[in-house]
Amino acid sequence: MSNYLDKYTDINEVKNMKLDELNDFADEIRQFLITQVSKTGGHLASNLGVVELTISLFNVFDFNKDKIIWDVGHQSYVHKILTGRKDRFDTLRMYKGLSGFPKTEESKYDMFNTGHSSTSISAAVGMARARDLKGEKHDVVAVIGDGALTGGMAFEALNDIGDNKTRVIIILNDNQMSISPNVGGMSTYLNDLRMATNYNRFKNDFNLTLEKIPKVGKGMVQSINRVKDSVKQLMVPGMLFENMGIKYYGPIDGHNIKELSKVLQKAQKVEGPVLIHVITQKGRGYEYAEQSPDKFHGVGPFNHENGECSSSGSKSYSKVFGETMIKLAEKNKKIVAITAAMPEGTGLQAFAKEFPDRFFDVGIAEQHAVTMAAGMASQGLKPVFAVYSTFLQRAYDQVIHDVAIQKLPVIFAIDRAGIVGQDGETHQGIMDLSFLSSIPDMTIMSPKCIGELRYMLKFAATQNYPIAIRYPRGGDDKTIKLSPLTSFRKGRWEILGEKAGKVAIIAVGKMVQHAVKAKEMLLEKGIKCTVVNGCFVKPIDKIMIEELINEGYKIVTVEDNLISGGLGSGILGYINKTKLNHNNILCLGYDDVFVPHGETDILYDIYGLSPEGICKSIVEFLN
Amino acid sequence: MSNYLDKYTDINEVKNMKLDELNDFADEIRQFLITQVSKTGGHLASNLGVVELTISLFNVFDFNKDKIIWDVGHQSYVHKILTGRKDRFDTLRMYKGLSGFPKTEESKYDMFNTGHSSTSISAAVGMARARDLKGEKHDVVAVIGDGALTGGMAFEALNDIGDNKTRVIIILNDNQMSISPNVGGMSTYLNDLRMATNYNRFKNDFNLTLEKIPKVGKGMVQSINRVKDSVKQLMVPGMLFENMGIKYYGPIDGHNIKELSKVLQKAQKVEGPVLIHVITQKGRGYEYAEQSPDKFHGVGPFNHENGECSSSGSKSYSKVFGETMIKLAEKNKKIVAITAAMPEGTGLQAFAKEFPDRFFDVGIAEQHAVTMAAGMASQGLKPVFAVYSTFLQRAYDQVIHDVAIQKLPVIFAIDRAGIVGQDGETHQGIMDLSFLSSIPDMTIMSPKCIGELRYMLKFAATQNYPIAIRYPRGGDDKTIKLSPLTSFRKGRWEILGEKAGKVAIIAVGKMVQHAVKAKEMLLEKGIKCTVVNGCFVKPIDKIMIEELINEGYKIVTVEDNLISGGLGSGILGYINKTKLNHNNILCLGYDDVFVPHGETDILYDIYGLSPEGICKSIVEFLN
Repeated sequence: MSNYLDKYTDINEVKNMKLDELNDFADEIRQFLITQVSKTGGHLASNLGVVELTISLFNVFDFNKDKIIWDVGHQSYVHKILTGRKDRFDTLRMYKGLSGFPKTEESKYDMFNTGHSSTSISAAVGMARARDLKGEKHDVVAVIGDGALTGGMAFEALNDIGDNKTRVIIILNDNQMSISPNVGGMSTYLNDLRMATNYNRFKNDFNLTLEKIPKVGKGMVQSINRVKDSVKQLMVPGMLFENMGIKYYGPIDGHNIKELSKVLQKAQKVEGPVLIHVITQKGRGYEYAEQSPDKFHGVGPFNHENGECSSSGSKSYSKVFGETMIKLAEKNKKIVAITAAMPEGTGLQAFAKEFPDRFFDVGIAEQHAVTMAAGMASQGLKPVFAVYSTFLQRAYDQVIHDVAIQKLPVIFAIDRAGIVGQDGETHQGIMDLSFLSSIPDMTIMSPKCIGELRYMLKFAATQNYPIAIRYPRGGDDKTIKLSPLTSFRKGRWEILGEKAGKVAIIAVGKMVQHAVKAKEMLLEKGIKCTVVNGCFVKPIDKIMIEELINEGYKIVTVEDNLISGGLGSGILGYINKTKLNHNNILCLGYDDVFVPHGETDILYDIYGLSPEGICKSIVEFLN
Repeated sequence: MSNYLDKYTDINEVKNMKLDELNDFADEIRQFLITQVSKTGGHLASNLGVVELTISLFNVFDFNKDKIIWDVGHQSYVHKILTGRKDRFDTLRMYKGLSGFPKTEESKYDMFNTGHSSTSISAAVGMARARDLKGEKHDVVAVIGDGALTGGMAFEALNDIGDNKTRVIIILNDNQMSISPNVGGMSTYLNDLRMATNYNRFKNDFNLTLEKIPKVGKGMVQSINRVKDSVKQLMVPGMLFENMGIKYYGPIDGHNIKELSKVLQKAQKVEGPVLIHVITQKGRGYEYAEQSPDKFHGVGPFNHENGECSSSGSKSYSKVFGETMIKLAEKNKKIVAITAAMPEGTGLQAFAKEFPDRFFDVGIAEQHAVTMAAGMASQGLKPVFAVYSTFLQRAYDQVIHDVAIQKLPVIFAIDRAGIVGQDGETHQGIMDLSFLSSIPDMTIMSPKCIGELRYMLKFAATQNYPIAIRYPRGGDDKTIKLSPLTSFRKGRWEILGEKAGKVAIIAVGKMVQHAVKAKEMLLEKGIKCTVVNGCFVKPIDKIMIEELINEGYKIVTVEDNLISGGLGSGILGYINKTKLNHNNILCLGYDDVFVPHGETDILYDIYGLSPEGICKSIVEFLN
């Protein structure tokens, strides 16, 4: 195999390669991806699935003028390789290194930042309309997975362009997975398309279909359903899209560069919106990833030879959440679990096996998940929606409108709260305390350690109002051993150990662990302090605040969240309102910034939330 | 006509009426609605459209066990009449009076609160799954308009049930309108269904269709498209829904009680999800509303005889927004306007006429609207998304993820900010300052008077970052004349008149008008004060705050928003952080409460934001 990858310097080189050269190039890229990601970790399976698709796109389009938007964007590695960033893959997802997602700051070929699902069609529509108004001529392409297509906003965009005939090319990258296998009517429909048309054999089957119809048609009205089933897929493939006014091509084998290039060229000539249904295989070309595409969706460093991932071995919050859910559900029949396409990530897989009737994976559909939970709660169930912090942003209105206004007892199990690290700005869970705190009457809790999560969930299941419990990615700091609180009173905090010194550090969740370490460091400097577990972010512990202030404590708050609207803000508002005689308080958190990608510890350090950073800020505060 | 309405006491009476009696009953209800709403104002056209539908629902279902959810809920008046609330219609939408939307607190027959669009199917799915888990037997019905069906979360719900076969009955109330005529591929599709099948003539047309097919089929491959068009609607009506796994019945004449009852009974027997496509006419039976259904969507009191609405005559913020947009667009070709199904409400109708190519109504699809705007801004356009405050909640994630992280210059023109009054909890725009303020780098402005809105828009159009401008429903207090600021510096406020006294009232938007009045009242009590126009809610005017504090002013903030996360919080955070030597400040706004429906002035009074309330709070604060 000659080495194309090392010689490749310009995006247009792909256009001059012959088909067998392109296929060799694809193999090379695939090997490069496996080798690189085995060292750094990252999104492997989805990128292995789009090697030929990406090459075909660069083969047909000219991205010096044409635009491309990668939905979610974790499948943009091949795109990055083809746009001059091969040599930066050693720094993938590291602080100041190559981002795992498209980033406009990183390359002119990254035309729109992505990270969350289902945004690409809308962004493409905006770009296409800008193009038309400016009288420019170029193509706009959105590449969206079949999982992302079930997110409501993708449908909103399809609905808009179907009517207005905006010229946009949508590549539906159908790999039957989001992170886990897809669910929903759309997924079934796409599956029907795959089955019925056997990869683009539409034309050949057409006459056969016509022959069938009259025979059935002569029968009874009851035959209608059979006619439907036979006709609907063969006669008009992709009719669901065609019905909405969007031209449909497909399904196409997503690993066949020749076929792909042909259909892409055809799509360029369509005057309105067109959707190309491409079938790809997640993990393609690396047997371990083909076998376990979910394991190799987002993966840490692994052994290239045998596909074995190094495991941290420590217990994660997600896992304990899942275990606790099973225990609670065994005792309480009202408990049901909901996920939006994250059964594994949220730790609910075992629950799903144990209680299949009480487990609901609604697909990438956070809005629906929350309102459905509200509907369940209105009928006496106790729904627990497990969701990543940053994705709950999608359902902000539903949390307010359907849950909070009606005060329905939905439990939000908010995973990946705080810094998540390598996925960057779009995935950091640092806004939930802010957007939830301002919602009237919302209750927000956060466990200081994994063990405490168990008891918080148990407590929440006994309460009859909306409760959010937020907890971080990963596990606990193994160098610290904290005893979990086993019972809770709404709005009451915990003092760790004895009160001492004149500084009280009120910390949220895992930041309690950092505060405990900071306390030790401060002690070495001769500064005694008291650590408080701010286990209720809302309502805050008014009694304890008054006591601490009356006893002359200086207050420091630490939260893995934006300062604005977080616990510190809440305490400040309360102190102000009650006119307590106080000094300034020190609020530690993220100060009006989005936090970029990087290793979690490095980010804590930079933003002053590592134990050392907390210690340093307190020393300065006291001076 | 005998009087059924006065005698009617129990929901089951409808079941015992004969068809002609039901039709008479419908006429009576219709007259009652017109008479009542002409006196109180309210949602008329949509309710006139569902009189027969509602009667048919009560005829077939037993809502002592069956559940019903009215999407948006403004069309629930007939439901309210049929569930014992006829005599409360004199208090419609007044403080402590009958709500204009379903309210669980109001009646056991209101099973789920609504207000925002597109939530009903999700809630119904939740209820149906609760029913199945509890082993109960009853029906769950969601009534959703064709406008609301384009909201993404409705699609998310359809996708979920199509696969899981949850037994839910969806009534698609197709009146071709949301508030304005509907847009989008779905709307076109529904229209095709109406045209092609000519009201449920499916069976009769079936044979005819079959005859046509072979003839066309014998022709060329090019004929495929013609075959498609003729087959797709006639052969499998509602195939878009059927494709997703949802049984489709329709279209049905929504004013024919007999037909409706028949199809509803049929739907009860379906084992999975079923959608009944019902065609209704907005404003049905009142000629003025039939002619202008948008005018009679939400209407003030009007003359029953001639359909004339009393107009306040004063200029609204929406109107001035629309006028200014035209002026700006004439000079700046980059400016485009976007609405999510609110061309009239947001004041953009004239703009749409003047610049049809630069006006985008995306349907009820706030998420898509925001990300599309981001796409446009990424290509150098200056998109202005005009949206009601409370509906922007739907696009919270998109504001963060697609606009703010990329710092794209999208302008959010946030109408109906603050108390909107009679529509209640779900429509009050009192959260936008909170949910926008915590977003890093977001700029938030608010004009103190209508005139200032013009200059703010002009200013925003020259800036190159995301800006939100929030302004209230209606117009200005006519008893006060303020001079608009005509130029702005980012993060700088305005002092109205001369500095005086020792209290500075920093007010946001229209609250400046209340503050000016409060200042006069305070002066009568011998208290001098300074009014500050807090025209930038973010960034705040740090220089002015420091000056005011250093000069010994006591700070009072007034905002038509939740206190948590608003301007007061921002100032408090700044004062705390900079360790300014200060006293407590007084933050006026809504303190962790949802504000119910009622006349705006009454609500301001109750929540202490009327000029009198502000004056009173300041007097107490000073003591």
